[in-house]
Amino acid sequence: MKTTALIMAGGRGERFWPRSRKSSPKQFLSLTDSDRTMIQNTVDRIRKLVDIRDIFVATNQEYRSLVREQLPDLPEENILCEPMPKSTAPCIGWGAVTVRKRYGDAMMLVLPSDHLIMQQHLFRSVLKNAMQAAERTDALVTLGIAPSTPDTGYGYIQYDQERDTGLPNTFRVKRFVEKPNLETARQYLASGEYLWNSGMFIWKASAILREIENQLPEHYRCLTAIEAADGTPAAAEAVQKGFREMQAISIDYGVMERAEHVYVIPSSFGWDDVGSWLAVERMNPANDLGNVIKGDVVTVDSTRCIVQGDSRTIAMVGLEDMIIVDTKDALLVCAKDSAGKIKKVLEVLRAVNRTELL
Amino acid sequence: MKTTALIMAGGRGERFWPRSRKSSPKQFLSLTDSDRTMIQNTVDRIRKLVDIRDIFVATNQEYRSLVREQLPDLPEENILCEPMPKSTAPCIGWGAVTVRKRYGDAMMLVLPSDHLIMQQHLFRSVLKNAMQAAERTDALVTLGIAPSTPDTGYGYIQYDQERDTGLPNTFRVKRFVEKPNLETARQYLASGEYLWNSGMFIWKASAILREIENQLPEHYRCLTAIEAADGTPAAAEAVQKGFREMQAISIDYGVMERAEHVYVIPSSFGWDDVGSWLAVERMNPANDLGNVIKGDVVTVDSTRCIVQGDSRTIAMVGLEDMIIVDTKDALLVCAKDSAGKIKKVLEVLRAVNRTELL
Repeated sequence: MKTTALIMAGGRGERFWPRSRKSSPKQFLSLTDSDRTMIQNTVDRIRKLVDIRDIFVATNQEYRSLVREQLPDLPEENILCEPMPKSTAPCIGWGAVTVRKRYGDAMMLVLPSDHLIMQQHLFRSVLKNAMQAAERTDALVTLGIAPSTPDTGYGYIQYDQERDTGLPNTFRVKRFVEKPNLETARQYLASGEYLWNSGMFIWKASAILREIENQLPEHYRCLTAIEAADGTPAAAEAVQKGFREMQAISIDYGVMERAEHVYVIPSSFGWDDVGSWLAVERMNPANDLGNVIKGDVVTVDSTRCIVQGDSRTIAMVGLEDMIIVDTKDALLVCAKDSAGKIKKVLEVLRAVNRTELL
Repeated sequence: MKTTALIMAGGRGERFWPRSRKSSPKQFLSLTDSDRTMIQNTVDRIRKLVDIRDIFVATNQEYRSLVREQLPDLPEENILCEPMPKSTAPCIGWGAVTVRKRYGDAMMLVLPSDHLIMQQHLFRSVLKNAMQAAERTDALVTLGIAPSTPDTGYGYIQYDQERDTGLPNTFRVKRFVEKPNLETARQYLASGEYLWNSGMFIWKASAILREIENQLPEHYRCLTAIEAADGTPAAAEAVQKGFREMQAISIDYGVMERAEHVYVIPSSFGWDDVGSWLAVERMNPANDLGNVIKGDVVTVDSTRCIVQGDSRTIAMVGLEDMIIVDTKDALLVCAKDSAGKIKKVLEVLRAVNRTELL
């Protein structure tokens, strides 16, 4: 069966301000020493499994030129620009009907464009495993990450380790749960029954469309209208209309939580969702003084800091657990334990109409 | 008797890096909302007592053009450029022989160029008081600041409150003491017998030269050679030779500590020696959130910070007691309690030959 991929690249990446901006969010940046951006790495790591002509990128009009620039080999018609943000179910549905229209049916790898994966080889091996399961069973398959900490920033997947599915390393999902509080996260971790929800899915286009038809019939109606117009002069108008009509709903909440046949593959291929500046510390080696530094930095009595310099020299004196991010027009200085509040800066800038900094 | 002033403006101001640089130290900057720089304010506040033609500025060749630029009314021949740094005694001695050569004798106000004085009127009234004492007694008069905290950053002056000098508000100095440790500083403060050494002196040129002759005879010999050449084509060469020969020694250690007739006037005119970035907090009002901010700054959950912005927007998230100073080519992020370590940054930059940043 043909293998396709749908790469989700519509995010705004606000938590990486000031390096990520509305005009150039996280997936189009490199946050490691790599010259390749996150979306380029995402494509690179599946090139051995999927032909570039069968890779689709879901994004929005604003990022079309960035996608073309960073993925010059990708056929332009494979860039799906959502007219407005409607969360993941409409976007994934559009990808699925596009695949159905073009290929009849095909395997789909649905992948975020802004995650880090350290062990590429292992990752591809897990994907192959997942594709076999999805092909043999018509099920929806998701990758669950073996948790290392009681992280409250992820959704969790409870799975059934007892019942044999007859498929290698593949388990039935009991339920999806939203981001827990710390106490609950600790229980999940201790129980050994939970995995982090990675947001990566593997299924046949026909399988996910069947579930959407069952659970989100209104969405399915809009999606078939988009499918019918695909390749005709009315295509753009149909997408516009379809997205206007579809309600915003996530694939997890709208489909996965209530779907019949959902499998999870417990995985550990060095995954990070790169959810905040703190991820930079996990992704890059610290120096002898415990700082993760990029750029021209002078350190005096400072430790456990994350610094992303730009063109200027940065001097740190007596700092601990700080994040410093410098850019041409904006500078962030943030305590590590306040990394979650960076979006408040954007709220302030929005309120005073400083759009050039967003 | 004619009144002259000698303004000491040779300092490097390293503790205000990165705003102060070797090429433009603290006395040539404004650290408040004032448009006037510190040296301009120093001159402004004595203009009612001293004619600009009788004000001398002691600095070095590197800062000559800054002095001319910032004090355009000052006669160029009143800029005394020390060929090399030799601490304060040689510099003050040079000022004194220059005054003697030009005026025979005159009152001298010796003032640092980089101190803050809040109550100008009171300051001038203290200076008048000091000039009367210096004129009537031929003594060396210094201004002592009534201490408000057991500060270990200042030298102290112990004075004799019992013995009547017959001069208003003027007391005999018992001894000068160097910067004490905290325990000693606390004892000084509790005793009520000590004042901070402000480094401001009032005396007749003849009086300080008499003391230099007695206590630093080799210096006096060099100074008279400089005096003899003053106004002749050999002047520059004589200054060069004299400074090469004179040992570096401070006026406090070399003269004041052992001088015969030294008086102090206890003063409180809102004085600050502006010794580090922490002074910016004392000199400028804090906003409602407890931050002292200059520039385009977005604050989220941050307090008690000192921020000096430049052209870029600065966002602070979750910070307490931090100093952030932004300039075109260098940024400082420093914990307040590490402000004394900023000079270590300069040591590092010097070691790696980054002279453009010094």
